[in-house]
Amino acid sequence: MPAPLEPRRVSDHRSRRIAALLDGLTAAHVDALLVTSLANVRYLTGFSGSSALLLVSQRDAVLITDFRYQIQAADEVGDVARVTIEQQSLWTGLWQQLTQVPGIQVVGFESAHLLHRDFQRLMEAGSRWQWRPTLDLVETLRERKDANEVRLIERAAAVAIRALERTLAEVRVGMTELQVAGVLERALRDEGSEGFPFPSIVATGARSALPHARASAAKIRDGDLLLLDFGAEVEGYCADVTRTVVVGRASDDQREIYDVVREANEQASREIRAGMSGRDADAIARGYIERRGFGDLFGHGLGHGVGLEVHEAPRLARTADGALAEGSVVTIEPGVYRPGWGGVRIEDDVVLDAAGPRILTKFTRELLELKS
Amino acid sequence: MPAPLEPRRVSDHRSRRIAALLDGLTAAHVDALLVTSLANVRYLTGFSGSSALLLVSQRDAVLITDFRYQIQAADEVGDVARVTIEQQSLWTGLWQQLTQVPGIQVVGFESAHLLHRDFQRLMEAGSRWQWRPTLDLVETLRERKDANEVRLIERAAAVAIRALERTLAEVRVGMTELQVAGVLERALRDEGSEGFPFPSIVATGARSALPHARASAAKIRDGDLLLLDFGAEVEGYCADVTRTVVVGRASDDQREIYDVVREANEQASREIRAGMSGRDADAIARGYIERRGFGDLFGHGLGHGVGLEVHEAPRLARTADGALAEGSVVTIEPGVYRPGWGGVRIEDDVVLDAAGPRILTKFTRELLELKS
Repeated sequence: MPAPLEPRRVSDHRSRRIAALLDGLTAAHVDALLVTSLANVRYLTGFSGSSALLLVSQRDAVLITDFRYQIQAADEVGDVARVTIEQQSLWTGLWQQLTQVPGIQVVGFESAHLLHRDFQRLMEAGSRWQWRPTLDLVETLRERKDANEVRLIERAAAVAIRALERTLAEVRVGMTELQVAGVLERALRDEGSEGFPFPSIVATGARSALPHARASAAKIRDGDLLLLDFGAEVEGYCADVTRTVVVGRASDDQREIYDVVREANEQASREIRAGMSGRDADAIARGYIERRGFGDLFGHGLGHGVGLEVHEAPRLARTADGALAEGSVVTIEPGVYRPGWGGVRIEDDVVLDAAGPRILTKFTRELLELKS
Repeated sequence: MPAPLEPRRVSDHRSRRIAALLDGLTAAHVDALLVTSLANVRYLTGFSGSSALLLVSQRDAVLITDFRYQIQAADEVGDVARVTIEQQSLWTGLWQQLTQVPGIQVVGFESAHLLHRDFQRLMEAGSRWQWRPTLDLVETLRERKDANEVRLIERAAAVAIRALERTLAEVRVGMTELQVAGVLERALRDEGSEGFPFPSIVATGARSALPHARASAAKIRDGDLLLLDFGAEVEGYCADVTRTVVVGRASDDQREIYDVVREANEQASREIRAGMSGRDADAIARGYIERRGFGDLFGHGLGHGVGLEVHEAPRLARTADGALAEGSVVTIEPGVYRPGWGGVRIEDDVVLDAAGPRILTKFTRELLELKS
C-alpha cells in the first residue's frame, strides 16, 4: 500500500474547505451551519465514523460524536475542529454547543440530509434558534476535487481495474452471477478496497438489459453478454466502473450494439470539458446513439459525479443545466438495453482537468470474448 | 437453492399485513399513509426496488415507481397493490393518486423516513392535503415475524454459518483483515447471499476492542483475538452473526474474558422470553458480566431486532422499556472490550417463540483456537 498522506497537509486542505464553506454561510445569511451528511462531515473534518453532527460558524467548528469514536475522532480531525464526546444524545451536545458559541441566532441545516423526525427536534428542543433550510452548500465545494482527492479516486480506480482483470480470468460458463460477484469482491478486498460503495451488479444474458439488476443465482450460458458494474473505495474515495463482455463468441448483434456504446463512451470521454453543461455532455453520447438508431434504448443519464460518495454532484443528463466544474470527476456510462435480449454499458471515471478530460479507469474498451 | 415461495401464499401474507396496517391508520386518525421507507414498502408489497412511494388507504393501496422497475414491480407486487409507473417524478404520481382516490383529507407520513426536502414538497405541492407525522406504524407490525419470515432469516443464518466455517478454515497468521473479509465475502456469495447487509467487521488483535472497526490492512499475528461480525441476506431477510476466535493458542486472559462473554450469551439466549422488556433481557447478560467484574467494558446494548433490515425493532438495551413481541427475532451480542488489548463479542440470532427462545445461528460458542 502507498504511504498514508502527510497529516499536516491534509489538515491544511481541510482548513481551506471550512474557509470556503464560511463564504457560503455568509451568502446564505446564516450564522452557522449544522452539517448532518456524514460525507460532508468527512469532507470538512476527515472524520469517517457513522455518528456525528458538525456545527460550523465563523468563530468555530465543533464535531459532536459518541464515546465509540473518541480515539478515532481525535486522530482524524486533528486541529480542524474541536471534538466533543456526547454520552447521551448527539442532539443534547448540539444544544450545549449552540449555547456556548456566542452570536449564533440563525442556523442553517441541510434540507437534503435531515429526517423530518430530527427537523422536529430543531423546532422543539432547538426553538431558541431560528432554523433555515439550505441545499448543497458543501456538495458544491465537493464538486471540484483537489489533486489529493483525484489521486485517491485514481487509486480506487486502479484497485477496481486490477480486481476486474482477475475476475475476468476466472469467469466460466455455468458460474452463477453470485459466484462471479464473490470472485470480484474477494479480488477487490485483496487489492485493498475498504468497502463496496454499492451492491455489485453482475448480470448475464437477458438480465444485462435490466439497468438495476443485482447479482442472482442465474447461470452464465455460452454466448451471454455479461455486465459487471461495481465500485472500490480507498481512504473514503470511490471509483465506479462498468464493463460488458461476451462469454464465448460474440454474435453480430452483440458486436453492433457494443460498438455503438463503445463509440459513444469514447466520444464523450474525449470531448467532455469543464464549463460545458451536464446536458451538453450527455448530448455527446446520446446524439451518437440516436444517430445509430438506438436512442430509445438508452434510458438513463450519461453519468454522475464520484468522490466521497459514489453518486454525487454534478449530473450528466438531459435535465442537468449546471456547468461542470474544473476538477470534477464524473462517470461516463452510456448504455443500450434491448429488453429480453440483453444490454451493454461501458463506464469510465474521468477527471475534468483544465487541459481537458483525463481517464482514471485504465482498462480496454474493446469487446472482450472470454474463453467459455 | 430451495424452491422459491409459492406466490399465492405470499400475496395472502401481504394482504394480511396491509389489513393490519389499516387498523393502525384508524388509530392514528389518518385517512391514508404515505410509506417512504423502502423496507416498509417491501414488507407490505414485496417490491424490492430502490425507488418507490406507497400510498395505503382504506380503499386502495398503490405503489408508485419508475420505468426501470416496470416488469419487476408487476412480478413482485401481484394483486396486493396497484402499480403505477411514473415517467417524471414519483411525487407527481403521488399528487395524481391522491386526487383520484376519494375521501382522503388527512395523510400520515413516516417522520423517521422522510427527508426535510421531501417534507417541504408535501407542504408546498401537496398543500391540498393535511399531513400528519407518524412513527413506527409499519415497524411495529414487522417486529412479530410470521413463520415464512423466520424461515428466511433461518436460511440467511445458515448461509452465514457455512461461510464462517469456510473462512475460519482459511485464516492464517500474516493475512490482513481485508484479505479475511475477501475470503468471507466470497464464501457468502458462494453460499447464496444476495448482498452484505452492512460492511463486514474483521478486527484482529487490539483492533477487536474497537466496537466499530471495519476491515483494514492490519495483519493477523500469532495469538491474536480475531473478531468477525457480518451478515447474509436471503430474499431480503438478514442474519447477523459475530464470532471471536484466537489465531494460535489462547492466553489465560483471553480465555477468561471469552468465558465471561460466552456465559453471558448463553444465559441471555436461554432466559430471554417474549413479553419481557428489552431492558430486562439486556440485564440478564449485563448482570452476569457485572458480577464477573467486567461491567465497565460492555459499552453497548445486548442486541436488536433483525429482519428486512439488519437493525430494526425491538432494542435490547438499558433504555428499552417496550415488551418483546412473540415472534420477534433479535440478536444476542454481549461483548467485553479492553482498550489496547482486544475484545470479544459473541452474537447469535434468536426467535422468541411462544414456547421459548430458539437459536437460528447454529455455530459453536466454544473458544476456537485456529492453527496459526
